[in-house]
Amino acid sequence: MSSIITLTTDFGTRDAYVGAVKGVILSINPDVRLVDISHDISPQDVMEAAYVLRDAAFYFPTDSIHLIVVDPGVGTPRRPIAARSSGHLFVAPDNGLIPLILDGKAPDESVVLDRPAYWRTPEPSTTFHGRDIFAPVSAHLSRGVDLSDLGSPAGELAPMHWALPITDEEGIQGWVAHIDRFGNCITNVPRELLESARRGRSVQCFAGTAILSGIATTYAAVEPGEPLMHFNSSELLEIAVNGGNASELLGIRKGTPINILFRGTDS
Amino acid sequence: MSSIITLTTDFGTRDAYVGAVKGVILSINPDVRLVDISHDISPQDVMEAAYVLRDAAFYFPTDSIHLIVVDPGVGTPRRPIAARSSGHLFVAPDNGLIPLILDGKAPDESVVLDRPAYWRTPEPSTTFHGRDIFAPVSAHLSRGVDLSDLGSPAGELAPMHWALPITDEEGIQGWVAHIDRFGNCITNVPRELLESARRGRSVQCFAGTAILSGIATTYAAVEPGEPLMHFNSSELLEIAVNGGNASELLGIRKGTPINILFRGTDS
Amino acid sequence: MSSIITLTTDFGTRDAYVGAVKGVILSINPDVRLVDISHDISPQDVMEAAYVLRDAAFYFPTDSIHLIVVDPGVGTPRRPIAARSSGHLFVAPDNGLIPLILDGKAPDESVVLDRPAYWRTPEPSTTFHGRDIFAPVSAHLSRGVDLSDLGSPAGELAPMHWALPITDEEGIQGWVAHIDRFGNCITNVPRELLESARRGRSVQCFAGTAILSGIATTYAAVEPGEPLMHFNSSELLEIAVNGGNASELLGIRKGTPINILFRGTDS
Repeated sequence: MSSIITLTTDFGTRDAYVGAVKGVILSINPDVRLVDISHDISPQDVMEAAYVLRDAAFYFPTDSIHLIVVDPGVGTPRRPIAARSSGHLFVAPDNGLIPLILDGKAPDESVVLDRPAYWRTPEPSTTFHGRDIFAPVSAHLSRGVDLSDLGSPAGELAPMHWALPITDEEGIQGWVAHIDRFGNCITNVPRELLESARRGRSVQCFAGTAILSGIATTYAAVEPGEPLMHFNSSELLEIAVNGGNASELLGIRKGTPINILFRGTDS
Repeated sequence: MSSIITLTTDFGTRDAYVGAVKGVILSINPDVRLVDISHDISPQDVMEAAYVLRDAAFYFPTDSIHLIVVDPGVGTPRRPIAARSSGHLFVAPDNGLIPLILDGKAPDESVVLDRPAYWRTPEPSTTFHGRDIFAPVSAHLSRGVDLSDLGSPAGELAPMHWALPITDEEGIQGWVAHIDRFGNCITNVPRELLESARRGRSVQCFAGTAILSGIATTYAAVEPGEPLMHFNSSELLEIAVNGGNASELLGIRKGTPINILFRGTDS
Repeated sequence: MSSIITLTTDFGTRDAYVGAVKGVILSINPDVRLVDISHDISPQDVMEAAYVLRDAAFYFPTDSIHLIVVDPGVGTPRRPIAARSSGHLFVAPDNGLIPLILDGKAPDESVVLDRPAYWRTPEPSTTFHGRDIFAPVSAHLSRGVDLSDLGSPAGELAPMHWALPITDEEGIQGWVAHIDRFGNCITNVPRELLESARRGRSVQCFAGTAILSGIATTYAAVEPGEPLMHFNSSELLEIAVNGGNASELLGIRKGTPINILFRGTDS
C-alpha cells in the first residue's frame, strides 16, 4: 500500500488549483506523502509533462502514485484513466500522457475512472477534473484501493509517440526535444543509437548556429563559454555551453533540427 | 489536534524567507505536515492571497492550520491574529485577509497574538513577523495549544470586502477578479446571481475586445482559439479561450469591467 | 537520527531534476521529510545559494540535513563533500558553498564522498551528481549512517569568502549582497559594525540614485513610495521603499556599492 503521491501539473503556483488538489487528497488520506515534481509545465503541453515524468517517475519507490494533470481536453469525452506499469501507478487524462511516459510500452493494467463513488462528487466540474476526479482517485489508491475497483478496463489508450531520429549511412537527423533551465539542449538521439550508427567514425553536428565536433564527457572539457556535445544524465545527446546557456548562445529552440554527420572511415 | 499547516505567502521562492518559516515551524513541531499552497502571491497583494485561500483552504481536512503571510503593514500597529472558522484555523496579519477569505462571515473565534511566550523571541523583527510570530504560533497550534491560549479575544477584525457586481433589470456590471495561469479571466459574477437575474433571457457579455453570447459548459464548446463564457470550478462566470490565453487575446486584465446584458423576454 | 532533508538547488521547477533527486532519496528512506528551501537559485550561482542557506538552515532542528546542489564544476575533480557544523549536516560540492554558509567557521567534521557504496551507482553521471551522489548520500545520512562512514576526512575545504565592508574614520564602503523578491536591497553591512563605527554620529548613505539619512525601524517610518534604510531581519543594513521596489526605483543591483558617511561629532 503506497503512501507517496507525486504531483505534476501545468497549474503554476500562483492560483488555488494546486492547493485544492492537495486539500482534496489530504482530506481522503491525511497520511499520504505529497511530493511536488513540477507545477510549471507549459500550459496544456502534454509532451513536456511526459518528458519530465519519463525522467523522474521511475526514481521513486515502487508503488508510488504519479498524479499528472495536463488536460487540454477536460470536459470533452477524453477519458480519465489510471494505469500500472513496472509497479508504478499513473493517474491522468487519456490524452497520450501515459503512452509517452511509458515510451510505447503497454501498461500492465489500465482502467477508465468511471466509478463516481471514488470521485469528490458525482457531478464533477467540467473544467477541473484534477480536483474532482484525479485527486480523489489518487488518494483512494494511496489508501490501498485496487486499480480494478476504480473503473472498467481501459483497453487501448489514446496513442501518442515521441518523434524518433532518422538514421542512414551518413548520419543522423534528430530534433531538440527539451531545453532545460540551464539552456542545455537535449536531443532525441540516444547514446546507443549514435554509437552503433557511427561505427567508430568521428561525429560532426550542425544545430542552430553551432558546428560541433567530437563528444565530450564533461562540461569542463571545453573552455568556459564554449559549446560542446555530450551524453546527458539520461544518455541522450545534449548540446551545452560550459558555464553558459546553449539555447540562447546558439539560437537553438525546442524542435530545432540537429544534423549529425559521420566523418572518416569505419573503425 | 491538527497536523497540517498550509503555507501561503508573497515571499517568492528565491530567498531564504520560506525556508526560515519552515525551519521555525519544524523546530517546534517536527511531526507537522507542511503543505505549500503558494509563495508566488504578488508582493503585498492581500486580495490576491485571500482569493487563492478562499478557493483552496476549505478543501483541506478540518483542523488544518492555514498560515498566510502577506503583510504590507508589518512593523505598524496592525495586529497579528489567529481565527477559527468552520473548523479551520487561520493565522495571519489583521489586514483584511481573514474577512476576505471568510467572505464577510465572522469567525467563530479570533485572538490577537499578544503572548510572546508563543513567539520565536520576545523581541520579534519589525519586518519578519512570518518567522518570529506567525510561524511559531502556527506550530504551537499544530501541537494542540488552544486558540484562546495564544492571545486575548480579537474583537472586530479590520474589515475588507470583495467588490460585488451591480445588478439591475437589464443586466449585470461585474469585474474581473483574477487572471489565472492559463489566462482565464475569472469574474466576480456567481452562477446563482446570473441565473436568477436573467430570468431565462439570453446573455450577452462585453469584456475587453470581446463580445460573447451564450454560456458554454466546456472549453471545447467552441473551436480552438475561440472565446467563450462559462461557469468555472468555483461557480463564477469566467471568460476563456479554448486552448488559448483569454487575457492576452482579449485585452482583459484584473479589474477590467464586464458588462452583461439580458436579451429577449422573460421565460 | 535525523528525518529532515532540506533541498536547495538551481534546478528550477520545470525539469525532471528535482523529481529525480526526491525519488532517489525516498527510494532509500521513504520516511524522510523533504523540505524545499529553493530550487530557483540563479543557475550556477554558488554565492546566492550560500546566501539563502546562511539565512535559512539554522532555523531548522538540529540534525537536519541540508542538501545543496549548485554545481558548476560537476564532472571536474571538484570533490563531493559532507560536513557537520553546530549539529547541522551539509551535503554539497566542495566549491565554496559550505565555507560561505558557515561564514568562515571550520566545520566540526567533513568528509569527501568517496565511497560508491553510498551512491546510486558506482558509475555516476558526469553531469548529475545531485541524483547520483548527493541525493543518496543525504538519504543514507537520514537513516543514521555516520558521516565518517560516507568517506575519508576532507581536510581543508575549497575556500570562498564573503566580501567584507571597508570601514574608516569617516564612513563605511559596502556592497549590495542580495536583492530579494520585494526589491529590498540587502547590504553586507551588519548592524553591529555600523553602530560601533558611527560612534553616535548621524548616518548618510549614497546608493544608486538614493541619498538616505537616518536609520528607520520599520518600513512604515516613511510615506508609501519613499525610500529608507533599516536593519533587516538578519541584522544587515537594507535599503527599501515603503510599499515599493527599491531595486527598480533606485537603480540598485546586486553588487552596487553603497557609501555610508558619518556626520557630526562623536557622542
